[in-house]
Amino acid sequence: MEENIFFDYASTTPCCTAALEAIQEFSVKKFGNPSSKHSFGNMANTAIKEARLFFADIFNTQPEQILFTGSGSEANNLALYGICLDYLSKNLKNTFNSPPRILVSSIEHPSVKQTALSLSPYGIDVQCIPVNKNGQIKLEQFMDLITPQTLLVSIHQVNNIIGSLLPVEELARIAKTKCPSLIFHTDAVQAFGKVQTARAPSTLDLTKIDLVSLSAHKIEGPKGVGALIVLNEKLLHSGLRPLIWGGGQEQGFRSGTQNPGLISAFKIASQKAVAEQDQVTRHTLALRNYLLASLKNKKLLTANLDSPLRLNSPLDTQISVPHIINLSAPGFPSGPWAKLLEEKNCIVSTGSACGSRKEESDEVLLAIGLSPKNQASQAIRISFSMRNTLQEIDILTNAIESTLNQMARLA
Amino acid sequence: MEENIFFDYASTTPCCTAALEAIQEFSVKKFGNPSSKHSFGNMANTAIKEARLFFADIFNTQPEQILFTGSGSEANNLALYGICLDYLSKNLKNTFNSPPRILVSSIEHPSVKQTALSLSPYGIDVQCIPVNKNGQIKLEQFMDLITPQTLLVSIHQVNNIIGSLLPVEELARIAKTKCPSLIFHTDAVQAFGKVQTARAPSTLDLTKIDLVSLSAHKIEGPKGVGALIVLNEKLLHSGLRPLIWGGGQEQGFRSGTQNPGLISAFKIASQKAVAEQDQVTRHTLALRNYLLASLKNKKLLTANLDSPLRLNSPLDTQISVPHIINLSAPGFPSGPWAKLLEEKNCIVSTGSACGSRKEESDEVLLAIGLSPKNQASQAIRISFSMRNTLQEIDILTNAIESTLNQMARLA
Repeated sequence: MEENIFFDYASTTPCCTAALEAIQEFSVKKFGNPSSKHSFGNMANTAIKEARLFFADIFNTQPEQILFTGSGSEANNLALYGICLDYLSKNLKNTFNSPPRILVSSIEHPSVKQTALSLSPYGIDVQCIPVNKNGQIKLEQFMDLITPQTLLVSIHQVNNIIGSLLPVEELARIAKTKCPSLIFHTDAVQAFGKVQTARAPSTLDLTKIDLVSLSAHKIEGPKGVGALIVLNEKLLHSGLRPLIWGGGQEQGFRSGTQNPGLISAFKIASQKAVAEQDQVTRHTLALRNYLLASLKNKKLLTANLDSPLRLNSPLDTQISVPHIINLSAPGFPSGPWAKLLEEKNCIVSTGSACGSRKEESDEVLLAIGLSPKNQASQAIRISFSMRNTLQEIDILTNAIESTLNQMARLA
Repeated sequence: MEENIFFDYASTTPCCTAALEAIQEFSVKKFGNPSSKHSFGNMANTAIKEARLFFADIFNTQPEQILFTGSGSEANNLALYGICLDYLSKNLKNTFNSPPRILVSSIEHPSVKQTALSLSPYGIDVQCIPVNKNGQIKLEQFMDLITPQTLLVSIHQVNNIIGSLLPVEELARIAKTKCPSLIFHTDAVQAFGKVQTARAPSTLDLTKIDLVSLSAHKIEGPKGVGALIVLNEKLLHSGLRPLIWGGGQEQGFRSGTQNPGLISAFKIASQKAVAEQDQVTRHTLALRNYLLASLKNKKLLTANLDSPLRLNSPLDTQISVPHIINLSAPGFPSGPWAKLLEEKNCIVSTGSACGSRKEESDEVLLAIGLSPKNQASQAIRISFSMRNTLQEIDILTNAIESTLNQMARLA
């Protein structure tokens, strides 16, 4: 049996060797609880301190502005619930004639969108910001949605389904020009290590991004660790409430015994990702260009209305990342198509793999204007890493061609 | 240099070999995202399903009643916030003339006690239940605190500072007799794998424990994974709100990409702990008895008022676990004492290591009646596992004797 080729690196990645070594080291030899005061605890705590220093350097913050969490989803929840529960804890008696508002883009990951919607029963007015076919914020509607009651805006930097890249720093500036008191959060889980992410300003600047979410397992770190970077250090003192209470780890914002191995592994994977960022961009861009050229050569992707494939991702490198490509095969549902591709050893995704094994991509594809009956449920996502090769793209292109033929025969 | 001897297994444990192997396997080879629908996802998801089945068998539940979390603290927060935020989401407009009440014992771990207190600003009436010198609930006061408005009672099964064992099933029955609608939660983090924990009743019984929290790293599993066991399956449908929203993992109660390696490792460690439970009890009881006999032999622990040491833990096996022993050295602060013991290669704890590197034990010791100036800040915790030997107890006893002499000379 031939080996499967993985084209789903936007869903997750294997741990790099050095990251795994850190996990092993802190599981057995240096197994102390980082909160213990003895030498076993100190060894564990030192590793966490080093990781905090590393990320503080990357994000131009103080170490205490780095809050390690159990996942990117938890970081997003800490941002949204942290801001809103803090507000509610101080304003419970208010009748909310003008309810506090939060805005999220209509193509956010569920850990932002569902989290935002879950705040409605507490009197929060949750609004989704429309996007265009490239997954870019519609600016006029965005401006109209920003009111003086706007507590929080959350817009991701890179969309996980179609790979659109959003100018989050510019969007933060625009939003804060209209409502200076709002908090701007960006989910950078799909962006970190792939494109430049926001850093804290060197001088006081109130038009900047306040909170950034990260996850380790998208960049060859382990599952089970993420971070919320508090670029606006004032939030450490007021305005952000913990999501998990207890022993006071992570500056009181995320209690629970930390795993120093997972946190060290996150640091190690991030060092590698940041160092290799340009190389990865060049490599995945070359893979994307080669894939699209090959599909065009085979007349599978044409400019005509009857093109066997349609591209759902933007291509301009100013508004997209090269490692995520979304394609529809009009007339053919994505589930069986992906299964046929897997029979030919090509592993692609039909959804975002963000949860509960159901399709999460449909909502995003509908938001960028795809029709519900056709393209949205017929889309697959191909996503690359440094581990993919041009030879693998040849195999993928051939597999796409023959599966389209198979499905056409069956239809 | 001689090797340090670890007497702080209540704070954490190293991973057992089989648990580490599972972590390695799912970090690299079987690295898929458990929510992905392809074979890589299926491999990862199968491991999680197997773990869920294992715990369901242990707790006499259906697999969906097992909710894996990122820590024991998170499980406790999911229980407390899950119940209270659900109530608030349905009762925001109420003026709370009779505010909803939650009760926690006064010696709970901070991930229960601090979490409970953090709910006050939302109009929840939080009350602490007094305990006696053995860390047992004062029943009369407990009954008086239970009102018809009581939403939730949370009482741990084993205290992490002094090792008291509480009759939580009996306490649940008593509490529900007075207020049948209340939810009873128990933090079993220090109990699971050491003593029998609550299981779901085979037939409908409304007087039972509803929610149980677990953690992996106390029983030779990894840090970064725990579970909330929903013994009362009705809570899956109504009454418990997620703490982390998003992709809908863990039946929607804990979104975020799961780490199948951590979850498998938790299963493997639990299998071992449950299988060896009686053996561990006999072994740690033998260690405790030998330690106390040795200290008595050396006249360090006497019945007299001028005994160099005082025992803060109960000894009756009906109301204590043998692996946690708390001792005070009146007149000598615990910090320097623990440091001196470490110089003699004995690693003990001055607090619970539950967080933020500050003393958490004081509050518990004050609650069981120790005086603030004397014993509370002079206590150390010694905690055993199967890894400790009688020879190590000899070294510890000699170290205690000589450090007490050292401190007496310095004083």
